[in-house]
This record gives sequence, C-alpha cells and structure tokens, in this order.
Amino acid sequence: MDSSALLHSFDAAIQLQREGEGVYLGHISQDYANFVGPFGGTIAAALLNAPMSHPERLGEPLSLTVNFCAPMADEPFRIHARAVRTNRSTQHWMIELTQSGETVATATVICAARRQTWSLQEARPPPAPGADAFEPIPVPPGLPRWIRNYDLRIVRGAILQETESEDSITTLWVRDQPPRPLDFLSLAAMSDIFFPRIFVRRNRMVPIGTVSMTVYFHADSAQLAGQGTEPLLATARGNNFRNGYFDHSASLWGVDDKLLVTTHQIVYYKE
Amino acid sequence: MDSSALLHSFDAAIQLQREGEGVYLGHISQDYANFVGPFGGTIAAALLNAPMSHPERLGEPLSLTVNFCAPMADEPFRIHARAVRTNRSTQHWMIELTQSGETVATATVICAARRQTWSLQEARPPPAPGADAFEPIPVPPGLPRWIRNYDLRIVRGAILQETESEDSITTLWVRDQPPRPLDFLSLAAMSDIFFPRIFVRRNRMVPIGTVSMTVYFHADSAQLAGQGTEPLLATARGNNFRNGYFDHSASLWGVDDKLLVTTHQIVYYKE
Repeated sequence: MDSSALLHSFDAAIQLQREGEGVYLGHISQDYANFVGPFGGTIAAALLNAPMSHPERLGEPLSLTVNFCAPMADEPFRIHARAVRTNRSTQHWMIELTQSGETVATATVICAARRQTWSLQEARPPPAPGADAFEPIPVPPGLPRWIRNYDLRIVRGAILQETESEDSITTLWVRDQPPRPLDFLSLAAMSDIFFPRIFVRRNRMVPIGTVSMTVYFHADSAQLAGQGTEPLLATARGNNFRNGYFDHSASLWGVDDKLLVTTHQIVYYKE
Repeated sequence: MDSSALLHSFDAAIQLQREGEGVYLGHISQDYANFVGPFGGTIAAALLNAPMSHPERLGEPLSLTVNFCAPMADEPFRIHARAVRTNRSTQHWMIELTQSGETVATATVICAARRQTWSLQEARPPPAPGADAFEPIPVPPGLPRWIRNYDLRIVRGAILQETESEDSITTLWVRDQPPRPLDFLSLAAMSDIFFPRIFVRRNRMVPIGTVSMTVYFHADSAQLAGQGTEPLLATARGNNFRNGYFDHSASLWGVDDKLLVTTHQIVYYKE
C-alpha cells in the first residue's frame, strides 16, 4: 500500500526523506506542476520543511527567504540544511537545494521562540466581502495543474480583463483544495499564490519567473490552529516594473482580520 | 602614510581585503558604531561588497537579504562568498560572515544583467517638501556615532514626541555626511537608515535588533550616477508588532521621483 495515498496532495508533494544529518531527499509531485517546474510555493514549502523536520529546530518560523536559481526538473532533489547559529531565542539556517549536483534553489530561514510582549497590529486588511460572496475561479485546460489544488476566489484584480488596469492590485480568497488545516508549510506556499503582477497590470501574459521571495511570519502555531481550514484573504501590489524585473508587496490575512504574513518578491519578466 | 585617510569614512568602514578565492577580511571602523556593534547598514554593505569585489561577478545587484545572527564584535571578520549558480543573466551568491569561527551574519545576493523592456513605475513617493525645507537632525551625546555619518532631515515621524503616534510612519531625507556619490553599497546601507518603527509608534526606546533585512534594487548604475550626491527620500512603516518581533516596509526615492529601492525588515524587540 502506498502511504502517500493517505496524505493530502500538498503533504505528498513536499514530503522529505531524511538521508543524513541535515540532508533530505524530496520530489515535488506532478500534481503541483507549473508551466516550468513545480509551483514555486511548493519549492518554498519543501525548503522550509527541512528545518521544520530537523530534531534540533528551535521555536517556530519567523522569516524565510527563497532564491530560485534555476528551473526544477521533474526528478528527486537533495536539500542540505545547516543551523549556522543558535541563540537563546533565535536560530539561523542556511539551506541549499540541488539536482544532479547543481544548485536549483537556496534559502535562509530564521526560527524564533516568541515571548508575550506589548503588541499592536498597525496594518489593516483590504475591504472585501466574505469568500462566500464569490465563486471559485475555474481552471481552464492549458493552465498549470497546481492551480487545481487551491480554491481561489478573486475579489479584485483578475488577469486578462477587457479594459486596461489602472494598478496591479489583486485581492483574493485562498484555501487548499481539498481543505487542509493551515500550518507554516502551507502558509509559506500560499505566500506565492499570486498571479504575476505584470499579468494584471498589462492584461497580457509574458514569460516570468520569481527570482527571490521573502516571507515574514507574524502568526504562531496557536494562531494557525485557530485559522483551521478557513480561507485566507490575500492581497498583492507591484511597486515597480523595470527592465526585466518587477517586485511586489503582499499580505495574507486570517480570521478576525489577523495579519498572518507579509511577503515580498522580485520577479523576472521578458519583453 | 595611511591610505584609508584618503577614503570617505564609509568606504574605509566597509573595505575588504582579499584573503583567497571568495574569502575577504574586514573590520568596520568605530566611526559607524551603534549601541551594540556597528550600524547594520554597514554590515549589509560589507556583505554586498564581497560579490561586488569578486572578479567573476555578473551584472549588478538585484536582491540582497541579510540575516543578523549575533552582535558583531569590534574586531576583524572574515567573509566567505560563493557563487552557487551563474545563469546567462542572473547570478546567485551565498555569503557567510564569521568572527572567531562563529557565524555573525549570513546573506544571499542576486546579481542580474538587465535588458531594456517595457517598464512602468506604479508606486509614488510620499508627498514631501524638498530637503532644503528641513534642518539636519542634531545628534545629541549618548546617541551612537554612526548617525553622524548621515545628513538626516525628518519630514514626518520623529521619535520621542510629546503626543502618542497614530502610526509608525517616518519619512526623511538622507545622504552621506560628508556627501558621497551614491552606489550600490551606500544604497544598501541607507536601506537600514530608519529608526526602529517601535520607537516611533510607542514614543519610547526599547531594546531592539534587526533580525533580517531584504533589499530589492530597482536602480541600475546609470540611475545611481544620475543621483550623485543628492539626498534620497526614504519612508518606512511598521505593519505588525507582535510578541517580540515587528516588521517594516520601506522605500527609497531618488531624483525625479524614481524608486531606487524597496526594502523590508523583521526586527526583534523586548518588552
């Protein structure tokens, strides 16, 4: 019997097998195939899964930066994860993902043990009716398979509209499909959920590829448990599109308007 | 004769001496001392200086993430910089900074050769009178020395005001003091110019330390040359302060309202 049949498709996609001290093997399944290689969110989640799986991990994820160096081939990869510094309340990881000995992605992860302090959430979520007010977007043939693993409902800023866009903002509802309780791994993946901002602003598709993504986790595991399988409100905006690269700033929101993640990307584009 | 006397204090602070293939020695001078260790911006600039000094560097900086692992001691450090992947138009670096064999900071840098493409700057700078409309802030005794190396003029959001702040926004003008033509290294340092957002929002100082900072460079060297020694307009806002960590999102603007940098931090705080 194949034990992976018992797993949610997301867990099956990003699962790692320990090969040695800080060394893990994985292979993201075709369920999460993108135009080229797998959905970047699953690569980010697989990279984060290395320290999450490590017996010496301290605390919970605070910061994750993923650098996408080259397209990932549909074959197994190896991750080397090293805790370069462990302090009383923070731990710093350097992580490298290779295929056939070539670096495909790198990451740094910081984990932290939080203490209760004065707290204040300054940012507010964008105004949006509840997820029930929208239909899930259909996934027409020709679009990558990974999209089918998410229930996506667009509040504003769809791609390929009939009129030119005045900005690159998209706000949408997102959850795993089928539903899966939120954890740091799925939150890392959902941080990469956004269609490329250039598709929105230009109302056309051009070749793109995320070069680097950073995720700051504001939520701890107790907050994630409170979120369960409820959809997240996600919003992103491009700041600058210039000579082959654009950035975006984004945020993901949970129940009770809680800010779960702030996240940023810089993305290559052609033309 | 001491050749460093010919250098701007910033160049003297972050200069590196090649020790071997991708290995550099440095020692940030006391001119840039902060409360604990040197100004984080100079650490970021020193880390970026490693690939910038490397004969095999491709293109110009696109993305920089610096993770501050531990306080830097007032003694020499060693940087190991490795190009883990070089593509046709991008190059990925992993960088580690050690003192006495212990990791003090890590970084990833992506360099890119840009091509001219369709471009559009979506973000706009915050409204602000010119730098001449403001006086440079005085640096009272007791504040760290590094601040004296910058001409800082606060448009809004000073610290330690008499009334409680309604938000954590600061907008200010910044340039090197004495003036120095802008380059990628000084731009990396200025990306860390902001007083901690928690000082602004709470109107009090508490112990803090930046844990991770990411900088996206939208400018190329031609744009930086056009900036020269003119002051930059810099603006930052905290999104969430929660159980020991807050983040901020910031941007740096050049002449003609050009977006030079978008940058983000996650910062530890106590109490």
